[in-house]
Amino acid sequence: MQKGKASLWYETPPVIAAAASIVGEKEGEGPLAGCFDRIETDAMFGKKTWEEAESELQRQTALLCLEKAKRAETEIRYLFAGDLLGQIVATSFGVQELEIPLFGLYGACSTMGEAMALGSMTVNAGYADRVLAMASSHFASAERQFRFPLAYGNQRPLSTTWTVTGCGCVMVAREGEEHPQAGEKPYARIRGVTTGKIVDMDSRDSMNMGAAMAMAAVDTILQNFRDLEVVPGYYDRIITGDLGVVGQKILFDIMEAAGYDIRGIHMDCGIEIFDSAAQDTHSGGSGCGCSAVTLCGSILPKLQSGEWKRALFVPTGALLSQISFNEGQNVPGIAHAVVLEHM
Amino acid sequence: MQKGKASLWYETPPVIAAAASIVGEKEGEGPLAGCFDRIETDAMFGKKTWEEAESELQRQTALLCLEKAKRAETEIRYLFAGDLLGQIVATSFGVQELEIPLFGLYGACSTMGEAMALGSMTVNAGYADRVLAMASSHFASAERQFRFPLAYGNQRPLSTTWTVTGCGCVMVAREGEEHPQAGEKPYARIRGVTTGKIVDMDSRDSMNMGAAMAMAAVDTILQNFRDLEVVPGYYDRIITGDLGVVGQKILFDIMEAAGYDIRGIHMDCGIEIFDSAAQDTHSGGSGCGCSAVTLCGSILPKLQSGEWKRALFVPTGALLSQISFNEGQNVPGIAHAVVLEHM
Repeated sequence: MQKGKASLWYETPPVIAAAASIVGEKEGEGPLAGCFDRIETDAMFGKKTWEEAESELQRQTALLCLEKAKRAETEIRYLFAGDLLGQIVATSFGVQELEIPLFGLYGACSTMGEAMALGSMTVNAGYADRVLAMASSHFASAERQFRFPLAYGNQRPLSTTWTVTGCGCVMVAREGEEHPQAGEKPYARIRGVTTGKIVDMDSRDSMNMGAAMAMAAVDTILQNFRDLEVVPGYYDRIITGDLGVVGQKILFDIMEAAGYDIRGIHMDCGIEIFDSAAQDTHSGGSGCGCSAVTLCGSILPKLQSGEWKRALFVPTGALLSQISFNEGQNVPGIAHAVVLEHM
Repeated sequence: MQKGKASLWYETPPVIAAAASIVGEKEGEGPLAGCFDRIETDAMFGKKTWEEAESELQRQTALLCLEKAKRAETEIRYLFAGDLLGQIVATSFGVQELEIPLFGLYGACSTMGEAMALGSMTVNAGYADRVLAMASSHFASAERQFRFPLAYGNQRPLSTTWTVTGCGCVMVAREGEEHPQAGEKPYARIRGVTTGKIVDMDSRDSMNMGAAMAMAAVDTILQNFRDLEVVPGYYDRIITGDLGVVGQKILFDIMEAAGYDIRGIHMDCGIEIFDSAAQDTHSGGSGCGCSAVTLCGSILPKLQSGEWKRALFVPTGALLSQISFNEGQNVPGIAHAVVLEHM
């Protein structure tokens, strides 16, 4: 079960029985538009503030996942969820009506990986038959939280990423305990996980998160290779969260220095979700929601169909707050990896 | 293993093999002064900002726990930790030099309960032989985050609590895998856990957190009674995190309405840690650090000696941020319970 220093390997792996994704208008105009369950053109989601909008986005996504799974809230034992906002308020106000026992998480943009790790650990141990794992972000609430109020109209450097408005939610279940969506088989197995540690590259630029996170991605990917005694070719895809084009280049360079060329099998959710040139998103998409919706909308269907047999999903987080940034602190990173397998 | 709707019961329970607590000067002048491992009179912990001070507090406490456990960082498989600050930056910058795979948590002041729940679940499942569970708060960083900068010198209503400067850290281990401190036996077994859900009492007063959290405490305590099929007398003490005197009264009233009188066995860490009248702390202490240091300094030794045979430790959190409060949102609560047993 324990593999190496930081990985777990499940003998009877939990499955992803259902998945739901809801995104905003801009994401709905990007290359993955056709993948998402719902595209909401009202950035306020019918609410009065950006933060309430993100909560509503979480609420709707969790309910949609339950609907697709044909399960009631009461059949879900635990919810593992988080978002980018201070004190994860999008989650606190988004999930309360579900009345599911909650483990609130903060892993910055790696949160979906953290939630799936803890969720699969919980199901595999027999602590639950079914859990939900969920993460969200919202462009406007994140800009206010981390950068500048939108009304300032400030310019963004080319290394900046664009925070995705979106929420992804998966139901992790014991095999046989799932209700496959519409009679289909589950999306994938969660075969194992590799838990990341904090990695500090001495980066101090909150407008260049990709650089801050690239080394954390490398650290977790190499740990996964060592722990499972595999090489890159073991995976059809190695998928980072939101390094963007700037971070991807750094990832390739450092991986190459470590002896691995992953160019042919690497994919970054932040690069996939927008057409950067046409949509003016600079380095790409970011936010917990970026990897979460790309997972639910695009990655899981490819694993379900067998187009990919095995993928390493590695959401990447940059650890900073407005206060830590203003106080001149570095921006360290963290990345959590999940091994997904075609069934 | 699963008990009722929201509880787990461990057949071969993990143990708390080591515990460490470091507090600030004010906590070191209170009734529990003699219980803590270290009292730091420099509120800045040798650093330049309040946030860095809290990070340094976490770093020192984790290292002290390892020292007391006679274990190296490399012998700890996972760290479950959090704090009150936005994006849990006290944790991010406090634990990075430990290089332990990290699950970052946010449960407001219930974080120590959340960390011990996930930590014991992880050890009991065989995912790790040893993990650390840790939570901190700092008066000055919390005041800046949630209320007013200290320099404003604003007055506080009598229902306010005083955020504890302190950090508590426990090492949860598989029985037999612990290194008892100084040849002693482990502090206690973690026999089971009850995971809380978000409870909203329609409270909107960030200066009266006890009221916001009392109903969440009731919800989790009653769930624990139902799930384990026990009555209050099953426990020598039921210990809430930081309801304070205002919240405790509400707790007693609601528990009584539910048919339970817990006055004789209830203890609240927020009430214990300060001499409210002499120390001008109004309703009592609060913050993740409040229940964490009281656990490590005062509760665990009583379980170790057998003065108490069994206690229900229920840290309580109020879910708000500066933004959610300014936007007029309610302050919902959450509480996570841990069943501790004398060995």
